Amino acid sequence: MLSLIELGAVVSSAVFGILLARKNRLDFIGVFTVAFITAFAGGTLRDLFLDRQPLFWIANDHYAVIVFLLALASTLIPAKTSQVEAWLQIPDALGLGLFAIVGANHALEAGTSLFIASLMGVVTGTAGGAISDVTCNEVPRLFKATSLYATCAFAGCWSCFAVQLVLGRSDIALFVGIAVVVISRLVAIRLNICLPEHKATYNDANSSGKTVGN
Amino acid sequence: MLSLIELGAVVSSAVFGILLARKNRLDFIGVFTVAFITAFAGGTLRDLFLDRQPLFWIANDHYAVIVFLLALASTLIPAKTSQVEAWLQIPDALGLGLFAIVGANHALEAGTSLFIASLMGVVTGTAGGAISDVTCNEVPRLFKATSLYATCAFAGCWSCFAVQLVLGRSDIALFVGIAVVVISRLVAIRLNICLPEHKATYNDANSSGKTVGN
Amino acid sequence: MLSLIELGAVVSSAVFGILLARKNRLDFIGVFTVAFITAFAGGTLRDLFLDRQPLFWIANDHYAVIVFLLALASTLIPAKTSQVEAWLQIPDALGLGLFAIVGANHALEAGTSLFIASLMGVVTGTAGGAISDVTCNEVPRLFKATSLYATCAFAGCWSCFAVQLVLGRSDIALFVGIAVVVISRLVAIRLNICLPEHKATYNDANSSGKTVGN
Repeated sequence: MLSLIELGAVVSSAVFGILLARKNRLDFIGVFTVAFITAFAGGTLRDLFLDRQPLFWIANDHYAVIVFLLALASTLIPAKTSQVEAWLQIPDALGLGLFAIVGANHALEAGTSLFIASLMGVVTGTAGGAISDVTCNEVPRLFKATSLYATCAFAGCWSCFAVQLVLGRSDIALFVGIAVVVISRLVAIRLNICLPEHKATYNDANSSGKTVGN
Repeated sequence: MLSLIELGAVVSSAVFGILLARKNRLDFIGVFTVAFITAFAGGTLRDLFLDRQPLFWIANDHYAVIVFLLALASTLIPAKTSQVEAWLQIPDALGLGLFAIVGANHALEAGTSLFIASLMGVVTGTAGGAISDVTCNEVPRLFKATSLYATCAFAGCWSCFAVQLVLGRSDIALFVGIAVVVISRLVAIRLNICLPEHKATYNDANSSGKTVGN
Repeated sequence: MLSLIELGAVVSSAVFGILLARKNRLDFIGVFTVAFITAFAGGTLRDLFLDRQPLFWIANDHYAVIVFLLALASTLIPAKTSQVEAWLQIPDALGLGLFAIVGANHALEAGTSLFIASLMGVVTGTAGGAISDVTCNEVPRLFKATSLYATCAFAGCWSCFAVQLVLGRSDIALFVGIAVVVISRLVAIRLNICLPEHKATYNDANSSGKTVGN
C-alpha cells in the first residue's frame, strides 16, 4: 500500500519538476535533473534521517528509469509557458500530499514520536520542491505568502494520525491524510489564503547593516 | 555535560533563527521552519557524517517541541526590526560556540583525527546558519567580510583540544573552547575585523564569460 | 587504483574551488571552505547514499590536510582575475571526470544497477561544483547553456561500463571513462555546444503569477 502511494508520489513530483524545468526553458539534462531532485530529494532526506538503507530509489531502481522516461517524453511535447503555469499546481499538491503521508508513516514505523513523525512528513513532502527552487535561484515556496505549503502537509499528517487512532484503519487514515493535504493546498492557492504577518520583503545580498523599512 | 551544552545550543540557534525569520517578516510556519533548520541542520550533518544514529533531534524528541514552542511564543511578542537586528548577534555567537565545541567532541569520541574533529566542529557550528541564509537567498555569513565566522569556530575547537591536552580536564576544556568562540566572534563583529583580500564582489547569474574588473 | 584516482579528483576539485573562490575575492577561510565543499560534497553524498561509512574524507584524513595546504599556498600566489578564469576549466573537467568514474564504480561495488550507478557517478561528479555555485549565489553550472556538464559525466560512465563489458579490463575501462568525460567537457566548452531548447531565462523571486514572454 505504502509503496503504491510512493510510486504515485514519485510520478507526481517528477511531473511537477518537469513542468517547472520547462517553465525555465532548461535543456533535457536540466529537465531530468530537476525532475530527479524534485522526486527523490525529500524521500532521500527521510531515509538518511531514519537510517533506512538502501535508499528508496536505490531499492526500487525502476523509479529512476520512470523519471528518465517521463523527462524524455516531455521533450517531445511542445507546450506554451502560460499553459504550463496553470497545470503546475495539481502535480505539486499531489506530490506534497502523497510524499508527506508516506514519510510520516515510515517515521512511525521507525519508532519516532508523533510530533517527529509529522515533521518528517513535512520534510519528505516539501524538501524536493524547496531544493529545486533554491537550485533554480527562486525563493523557496515554503516562504511564499500564497503558500500554506508546509502547513497543509502538517495538517494532513495529524489528520492521518487522528483517523488511525480513532478508527484503527490504516488504509482510511492514509487516504484521509492525503486528501486533507491535497484539497487544503489547492483551496489555499485558489483562495489565496495565507497566515498573518507575512509581507515578503526579502533582502538582497549585502543586507548586514540595513534596517528594513516598514 | 555535552547534552546540557547541546540543549543550550539548540535554544540559542532557534532564537537566532526566529529573529532572522522575523527580520524577513515570515509567517509562523516560515519562522518555525527557519528556526528548525538553524537549530538542527549542523548537528544533523555531523550525525550523518559520523554515522551516529538515531539523529540527535530524533533521539531527544523534546528538542523539536522546544523549538516549536519558542517559535509560537515569538509570534505573540511584537518587535521592531531595528531592535531585532541588534539582538541577532548574541544567540548567533552562542549557537556557533556551543554547537562547534559539541560537534568537535562528538567527532573525537567517534575516533577521528584532531584536524577532522575541528572541521566537524566548524561544520556543526556554521551549517545551520549558512543553510538558513541560502534558503532566504542571502549570501551566507560564512562569506561575508565582517565575519571571521568559521575562523572563530576553528580557533575555539583548537583551544578546547589544547586545554584538554595540557590540563586533562574536559569540563574546563569545553568551557574555554566555547568562551573563545563566543568572545572572539562578538569582538570581531564589534571591531569589524576581517581577514585580508576580501572585497565581496559577488557575481550575478550569467557570469560565465565575464571578466571581473578590478 | 580507485583511491589513486580519488586523490587526483580531490586535488583537481580543490584547485577548482580555490580558483572559483579567488575569482570571487574571498578571504582565506572562504577559499578553504569553497575548496573543501567542492572537493568533498559529491563524494560525501555518494557515501551517504550508498551507506559507506566512514566517509571517504574521514577514512583518508590526509585529504582534508591537502586541501588546507593547497588553500594556504594559493593565498601566497597573486593572480589576476582574468587569468584565473581561463584556468578554471581544466581542474573543473578533471575533477568532474575523476569523481564521476570513481563514484560510478563505488556504486557498482555496492551492488546497484547500471543506471543507478551512472546517476551516482553524475551526482558524485557534479554535486561539489553545484553546491559551491549555489553557495556563491550563482546559477549552478548544471543549468547553464554552455554546459553539457551532467551529460559528459553520464556519457563517461556508460563508456566505462561498455569497455568493462567488452574487454573485461577494469583499468582500461576507468581510463576510457575518465578520458571521455574530460575531453567531451573541454570540447563542449571550446565549441560552445549545448543541447537544444535552452534559452536560460531564469526568473527572479516573485515569479508566481508571471507569464514568461517568448
